[in-house]
Amino acid sequence: MFLTRSEYDRGVNTFSPEGRLFQVEYAIEAIKLGSTAVGLKTKEGVVLAVEKRITSPLLPTSVEKIMEIDSHIGCAMSGLTADARTLVEHARVETQNHRFSYNEPMKVESMTQALCDLALRFGEGDDESMSRPFGVSLLIAGHDENGPCLYHTDPSGTFWQCNGKAIGSGSEGADTSLQEHYSKDMTLEEAETLALSTLKQVMEEKVTPNNVDIAKVAPTYHLYSPSEVEAVIARL
Amino acid sequence: MFLTRSEYDRGVNTFSPEGRLFQVEYAIEAIKLGSTAVGLKTKEGVVLAVEKRITSPLLPTSVEKIMEIDSHIGCAMSGLTADARTLVEHARVETQNHRFSYNEPMKVESMTQALCDLALRFGEGDDESMSRPFGVSLLIAGHDENGPCLYHTDPSGTFWQCNGKAIGSGSEGADTSLQEHYSKDMTLEEAETLALSTLKQVMEEKVTPNNVDIAKVAPTYHLYSPSEVEAVIARL
Amino acid sequence: MFLTRSEYDRGVNTFSPEGRLFQVEYAIEAIKLGSTAVGLKTKEGVVLAVEKRITSPLLPTSVEKIMEIDSHIGCAMSGLTADARTLVEHARVETQNHRFSYNEPMKVESMTQALCDLALRFGEGDDESMSRPFGVSLLIAGHDENGPCLYHTDPSGTFWQCNGKAIGSGSEGADTSLQEHYSKDMTLEEAETLALSTLKQVMEEKVTPNNVDIAKVAPTYHLYSPSEVEAVIARL
Amino acid sequence: MFLTRSEYDRGVNTFSPEGRLFQVEYAIEAIKLGSTAVGLKTKEGVVLAVEKRITSPLLPTSVEKIMEIDSHIGCAMSGLTADARTLVEHARVETQNHRFSYNEPMKVESMTQALCDLALRFGEGDDESMSRPFGVSLLIAGHDENGPCLYHTDPSGTFWQCNGKAIGSGSEGADTSLQEHYSKDMTLEEAETLALSTLKQVMEEKVTPNNVDIAKVAPTYHLYSPSEVEAVIARL
Amino acid sequence: MFLTRSEYDRGVNTFSPEGRLFQVEYAIEAIKLGSTAVGLKTKEGVVLAVEKRITSPLLPTSVEKIMEIDSHIGCAMSGLTADARTLVEHARVETQNHRFSYNEPMKVESMTQALCDLALRFGEGDDESMSRPFGVSLLIAGHDENGPCLYHTDPSGTFWQCNGKAIGSGSEGADTSLQEHYSKDMTLEEAETLALSTLKQVMEEKVTPNNVDIAKVAPTYHLYSPSEVEAVIARL
Amino acid sequence: MFLTRSEYDRGVNTFSPEGRLFQVEYAIEAIKLGSTAVGLKTKEGVVLAVEKRITSPLLPTSVEKIMEIDSHIGCAMSGLTADARTLVEHARVETQNHRFSYNEPMKVESMTQALCDLALRFGEGDDESMSRPFGVSLLIAGHDENGPCLYHTDPSGTFWQCNGKAIGSGSEGADTSLQEHYSKDMTLEEAETLALSTLKQVMEEKVTPNNVDIAKVAPTYHLYSPSEVEAVIARL
Amino acid sequence: MFLTRSEYDRGVNTFSPEGRLFQVEYAIEAIKLGSTAVGLKTKEGVVLAVEKRITSPLLPTSVEKIMEIDSHIGCAMSGLTADARTLVEHARVETQNHRFSYNEPMKVESMTQALCDLALRFGEGDDESMSRPFGVSLLIAGHDENGPCLYHTDPSGTFWQCNGKAIGSGSEGADTSLQEHYSKDMTLEEAETLALSTLKQVMEEKVTPNNVDIAKVAPTYHLYSPSEVEAVIARL
Repeated sequence: MFLTRSEYDRGVNTFSPEGRLFQVEYAIEAIKLGSTAVGLKTKEGVVLAVEKRITSPLLPTSVEKIMEIDSHIGCAMSGLTADARTLVEHARVETQNHRFSYNEPMKVESMTQALCDLALRFGEGDDESMSRPFGVSLLIAGHDENGPCLYHTDPSGTFWQCNGKAIGSGSEGADTSLQEHYSKDMTLEEAETLALSTLKQVMEEKVTPNNVDIAKVAPTYHLYSPSEVEAVIARL
Repeated sequence: MFLTRSEYDRGVNTFSPEGRLFQVEYAIEAIKLGSTAVGLKTKEGVVLAVEKRITSPLLPTSVEKIMEIDSHIGCAMSGLTADARTLVEHARVETQNHRFSYNEPMKVESMTQALCDLALRFGEGDDESMSRPFGVSLLIAGHDENGPCLYHTDPSGTFWQCNGKAIGSGSEGADTSLQEHYSKDMTLEEAETLALSTLKQVMEEKVTPNNVDIAKVAPTYHLYSPSEVEAVIARL
Repeated sequence: MFLTRSEYDRGVNTFSPEGRLFQVEYAIEAIKLGSTAVGLKTKEGVVLAVEKRITSPLLPTSVEKIMEIDSHIGCAMSGLTADARTLVEHARVETQNHRFSYNEPMKVESMTQALCDLALRFGEGDDESMSRPFGVSLLIAGHDENGPCLYHTDPSGTFWQCNGKAIGSGSEGADTSLQEHYSKDMTLEEAETLALSTLKQVMEEKVTPNNVDIAKVAPTYHLYSPSEVEAVIARL
Repeated sequence: MFLTRSEYDRGVNTFSPEGRLFQVEYAIEAIKLGSTAVGLKTKEGVVLAVEKRITSPLLPTSVEKIMEIDSHIGCAMSGLTADARTLVEHARVETQNHRFSYNEPMKVESMTQALCDLALRFGEGDDESMSRPFGVSLLIAGHDENGPCLYHTDPSGTFWQCNGKAIGSGSEGADTSLQEHYSKDMTLEEAETLALSTLKQVMEEKVTPNNVDIAKVAPTYHLYSPSEVEAVIARL
Repeated sequence: MFLTRSEYDRGVNTFSPEGRLFQVEYAIEAIKLGSTAVGLKTKEGVVLAVEKRITSPLLPTSVEKIMEIDSHIGCAMSGLTADARTLVEHARVETQNHRFSYNEPMKVESMTQALCDLALRFGEGDDESMSRPFGVSLLIAGHDENGPCLYHTDPSGTFWQCNGKAIGSGSEGADTSLQEHYSKDMTLEEAETLALSTLKQVMEEKVTPNNVDIAKVAPTYHLYSPSEVEAVIARL
Repeated sequence: MFLTRSEYDRGVNTFSPEGRLFQVEYAIEAIKLGSTAVGLKTKEGVVLAVEKRITSPLLPTSVEKIMEIDSHIGCAMSGLTADARTLVEHARVETQNHRFSYNEPMKVESMTQALCDLALRFGEGDDESMSRPFGVSLLIAGHDENGPCLYHTDPSGTFWQCNGKAIGSGSEGADTSLQEHYSKDMTLEEAETLALSTLKQVMEEKVTPNNVDIAKVAPTYHLYSPSEVEAVIARL
Repeated sequence: MFLTRSEYDRGVNTFSPEGRLFQVEYAIEAIKLGSTAVGLKTKEGVVLAVEKRITSPLLPTSVEKIMEIDSHIGCAMSGLTADARTLVEHARVETQNHRFSYNEPMKVESMTQALCDLALRFGEGDDESMSRPFGVSLLIAGHDENGPCLYHTDPSGTFWQCNGKAIGSGSEGADTSLQEHYSKDMTLEEAETLALSTLKQVMEEKVTPNNVDIAKVAPTYHLYSPSEVEAVIARL
C-alpha cells in the first residue's frame, strides 16, 4: 500500500519490511521518465543510439546524451543529466589515472566497477558520494583486450554485461524488439540499423539527424556526424 | 496529491515514489516568482535583457540582475538574488583561477559546468555547497574560441546550450515570442530589438531606461548606459 | 493555509512547494516586531534615526540601535539586538582587516556584501554562520570614493541600494511618508527633519532626546548628542 | 494556540511564523521559577541582594547566588544554578586572560559582551556553546574607568545597562517597587536599604541573615558577612 | 498533561514551555527507583551509609554503592550503577591529576565542581560527555583544609553543600528523620547510629551486616568491615 | 502488528520492544528474494552451485554469483549483487594483505570473521561501513591447514560453520533435500551431483550450463567450464 | 501502555518519564531469546556450561557460545552472537595489552570493567562504541591473585560479582535451581554436575555431548572435549 511505502523512503538507505530499498526503486522510476537509449554489441564493435528530445528551435543542440569516457569507452545515458555528468566525470578521472599509473588503457569492467562503487555508496556522507542514489542508468560501450563489450548500470550500483539493452521511457518496447531481431553474428552496420529502427518505434516523431545521436566504439569511440546519421536513417 | 508531496520534500535530496526530486522542483517555482530575463545569440554576439522591478522612487537602482563574470562572460538572473550572487562569485573565482593557471580565458562551457557542479551538490554538507538547491536560473552569455554562446542553467544543476531563452515569471509568453521571431541570421541590433520587445510584452508597465537593463558580449561584456537603452527603446 | 506552512519551516533552509523559504519569512516577521528606524541619503551625507523604546526609568540608556562600523560607516538596526551585534562585530572585523591589508577604507558595498554573505549561509553548520537566519534588518549608511550611500539588508542576505528607507514595526507608514516628502536635492538638515518627523508619526509617545537616536555619516560617522537631537526636535 | 507552539520549539533555534524563538522564551520561563535578585547602581557603587531559599536545616549554606567574577565585578543570578556556574566560569577566564594580556582590568561591558556571545550561540554545535539556551539571568555589577555600572543579561544573549533591576519569580513586584523609590542620587547605604526592603516585599518569610545575601562593588567586590547583613536588616 | 510532556523530552536538552528540562527530571526519577543512601557531617568527620539490595544468595557481594575517590574523599550513590562508575572514574582521574600537578590533595568542592561539569554537558556530543543525563545522585564525603564536608549532586549538574542528606527510593522519609534528630554537635559515633537507624526505617527487611554498607571520612576514607557494621547495629 | 513494526525500523540500528533488530530482519528478507545457492563440504573439498536467472538472450552471462576471494577461497552469494561485491572486494584485500604481511594464505575462519566485522558495523558512520545492513548472504568455501571448510554468513554479521547449506528464495526446500541426502563420507563427485539435483528441484526451468554455475575449492578454487557443468548435469 | 513506550525508544539513549532507558531494556529482551548458559564458582575454580541449539545435522559445530579471553579468563554468552564476538575481541586486546605493558595477567575485575565501559557508551558516536546497546549477556569466569571469580554483565554496562548465575531463555528456572542446590563448599566436580543438571531441566531435548558445551577456569581455561562432557553426563 502506498502509505506504507512512504514511511520507509525518507531514510535514503534503509530496508522496508519486504527487504526493499525504496529510494533506489524511486531513482529507477526517474529513469523511466528519461529519453530512450539503445546499445548493441557485435564482433566488430559496439553501437549506441539515443533519442534527443527537442523542446524548441532555439536549442541548437540538445543536452549531450552520449559521452566519451576514454578513447576506448563511450556511454549513453537516461535519467537525470546532471547526475550522469558527475558519474562520467568520475569515470574519466579513473581512466586517466589508470593510464598515468600503468601506461595502458583501463579495462572496461574495472572502469564500470569503479563507477558503480561510487553509485552504491550514496547516503554514506563521505566526500565523493551523493546524499541520494544517482538517478541515472548508463549503457557503457567499450573495447579492450577481451574485445568489444557492453555494460548496463542502474541506480543500485549493480551492473550487467549484455549483448543488447534499451533504457529510458521506451525501454520495454525497445527490449522486446531487440530480442526479436538481435543476432550475435550481426555486422556493425546491421547493428546500427537495428538500433535506429528500434528507437524509431518508441519515438513519437519522425527520426531525423536532429533528434537522434549515434556513436560506436570500434575499437575507438566515434560520435556520428549528422551526415553519417542521415546515412543510417536512409538504410531503415 | 498535495499531502503526499509534503511527505517527501523535507529531506532536501530524496526521490519521491515517482522518481522526482521535490526540493529541486520547488526551487524552480521560486524562479517563476522572479523578474523576466531574455537572452539571444547572434553571429555577432549575445544579448541579455532583464526587467527591473521598481518598488519605490527611493531606490535609485534596483538590485543588479545582469552581472559580469569575466571580460568575455556575463549573465542575467531570475530568482533569489542572494543565491545568484553566490554562484556568480564562485564563477568569478573559477575564471580568475583559470587565467592565473593557464594564462588564457576559461572556455564558457567549462565555466558553466563548474557553476553547475556547485549547484548540483546541495545538501551534501561540504563547505562550498548550500544545504538547499540554489533558487535561481541563469542565462550565461559568453564568447570564446568557438564564437558566441548562450547557456541556460536551472536549480537541478543541469545546463543547456541555446540560441534564445527567457526565464522568470513571464518566461512562458516570452519563449513563444522568441520562437516566432528568432532567426539565426539576425544582426546583433535586431536581437537587441527582439529581446526588448519580448520583455515589453510581459511587463505590466511602459518600458523605460529605468526598468530594464541590457548587456551584450560581443566579444566582450558591455552593460548598456541609460542612453544606449533609450536608443534601443526608440527602435521598438 | 497555516498548517501547511508549519510542515515546511522546521527544516531551516528548505523550499516550500511554492518556492518559498519560510524560516527567512518568519525572521522577517521578527523585524516587524522591532522598533522603527529610518535612513535618508542626501548629497551632503546620510542620516539615520531610530526610535528607542524606554521600558523603565531605571534604564539610563536603552540598548544601542545605531552603531558605528568604521569611521566612514554606521548602521541602524531593527529586530533581535543580539543578532545585530554579531553582524556588526563581523563587519567591524572585515573593515579593520581591509584597512590593515590595503591601507585604505573598505568600500561600503564590499562591506555590505561581506555582511550578507554571513547572513545567507545560515543552517550550513560552519563555524561563523548561525543555525537559523539572522532576525535583523540593517540600514547601512556610508561614504566612500563614490560619495554617500545607503544600503538596506534583510534576513535573506539580500541588500538594496536606496535613497531612503524605513524598517521595523512602523516601516509601512514611514515608507509612505518618506516617498511623499523625499527629494534628491534635500540638504542634510532637511533630511534630519524629515527622518525625525517620520519617526514621530509612527511613535506612540512624544519625541524627546531620550526616546530617539540620530546619527549621520557626512563623511564620517557622528552620533548626535542629546542637545543636537533637541535642536532637530525644535525644528519639527 | 498551545499546540502550534509545540510544533516549533523542538528545533532549538528556529523562528515561529510570528518571528519568535520559542526555546529562548521557554528559557526565560525557567528564570521566572528562580529566586528573586535585585541590583541597584549609585554614584558610590553597586549593590546586589538575593533571596536564599532554605529547604532544610541540614543545608548550612544554600547554593551561592552571588558570585565574584573579578575583583571589580560581581554578579547575582536567577534560574538554573549549573548554567550560571558555566557562564561565570567563562567570564572569570575572560577577565583573567584580559589581565594577563593587557595588564589591566577588563571593562565591564566587554566582559558582559563576551558572556552574551557565549549565550547567543547555543545550538551551534561548537565546543564551548550549549545545545540549548542558558536558563539563567544575571545582574552584573562592576566598576571600571567609567565608574560604577550595572548590566542585566537574559537567555537570548541580549544585555541592557540599567540603574536598577530585579530578576526571578518576584521580579514584577520588585521592579515596580524599585521604580517608585529609586533615585540617582541615593547613597550606597540607601541603596542597600531599598534593595533589601524590596526583597522583603516579595519573600514569603521574614528576612534574616540566613535567607538573604548582599554584596557590593564599591569599587571592589565585597560579600557581606552575616553581621553586616544584620546591620542592613536593622535599618529597614 | 502527559502527552504534552512527551512531545518535549525527545530532544534531550530542550526547554518545555514552562521552562523545564524534562530529560533531567526523568533522570531524577531514575534515582527514586534506586536504593537509599544517607550522609551525615559531624565535626569529627563524615559518615555514609547505604542499603544493599540482595537478590540472591548466589551474589556474595552486591554491587558496590560506596566508593573511594581519593584517600580523603568517598561517595555513596543511588541510581544507575554504570553511570556512577563513570562519574567516579572521572573524579578519580581528576584527583590523581591534581596530586601529580600540585603535590597536594584536591579540594573537595573543586572535585565536586569538576564532576558536575561533566554531568551538565550531556547531549553536547563531545568525547567525555554522555548523550543523556547521568541517572545518578551522589553523596560526596570529604575532608580538606576546611575540615569535613558533605556534598549532594543531582543529574542536572547542580550540587549543594549540606550537613545531612538522604537519596534514593526512601529519601523522603529518611530526610524527615534526619531533620528531626540531626544536631551539629553530634559525635561521629552518634552520626553512625543516626544514619543506620534512618536506613532501618526505610528498609523493608531487618538490618544486617550483609544488607548495609557504612563508610567514614575522618579524615581519611574507611569502609567498615562486617564486624564494625555489626557493632553499629548493636547500638541501635 | 505491522504498524508497530514500522515505528522501529527507521532507526537502522535500534532494538524493538521484543529485543529484535528489524533492519537486519528486513535485510534477511532481501535474501529470500534472491536466487538459490547451495554449498556442500566433503573430505575432498567443497562444492558451490548457484542458479543463474536469465532475463534475456541479450545477456550473454548473468551477473556473477560465484566469486573467487583467494586461490584457496571462493564464495556463492544470494541477495543484493552490489552489496556482495563490496564484501568480496573487502575480503580480497584482507587475504592479499595477509599474504603480504605473513607470507602465507589467510585462515578461512579469520577471513570470514573480518568480513562479518564489516557487516556488523553498519550504521556506525565510519568510512568502511555501510549506513544499512548488507542485504546479502554468502556461502564461503575454503581449504586451509584444517582441511576443507564451509561457512554461512548472514546480514547480522553472524557466521556458522556447516557441512551443507542452501541460501536464497529456494533455500527452505533445498535445505530439507540436503539434510535427507547429505553424508559426511560423500565423494566430491557425489556432492556435485547432490548440489545440482537440489538446485534442480527449486528451479522453475530445466537445468542447463547456461542457468547454473558450479565451482569447487579442492584444494584450490576452480569455476567449472560449460562442458564441465554439462558433465555434472549428465549424471543427474 | 505500549504506545507510550514506543514514543521513547527511538532515541537510543534517552530516559522515559519514569526514569527508564527503554533501548537497554529491549536489548535485555534480546537475551531472553537466547540459549541458556550457567556459571558456578567453587574454591577450586569456576565452571561454565551452555546449551547448544542444533538446527541441522549439516552444522557440525554450532556457533561457539563459550570463548577463551585469556589463559586465565573464559566466558559464556547468551544473546546476539555477533555482538558477543565484538565484546570478546575487545576484551582479548585489553588483556594482551595488559600483559605486554605490565608483564602480568590482567585482573578479572579490571577486564570486566573495561568490557562494560565499551557496553555503556553505545550511542555516543565514537569509534569503538556501537550505535545501540550490545544485545548480549556474559558470564565471565576467571582466576587471579584473589582466587576464582565469576562476573555477570548485562547490556546496561553493569556487572555483578556472583557465586552462581544463569542467563538466557531458561534463566529463571535455572536460577531457582542453582539457589536450591548451590553451596560455597562444593567441589569443582559437584559444580560440573549441578551446572549440567540445571541445564538439563530447561532444555527441551536429551543432553548429549553434541548439544552442550562445558568449560572451566581452574586456574586456567579449559574447554571440555566430547568425552569429558560425556563423563559429566554419566554422573547426572
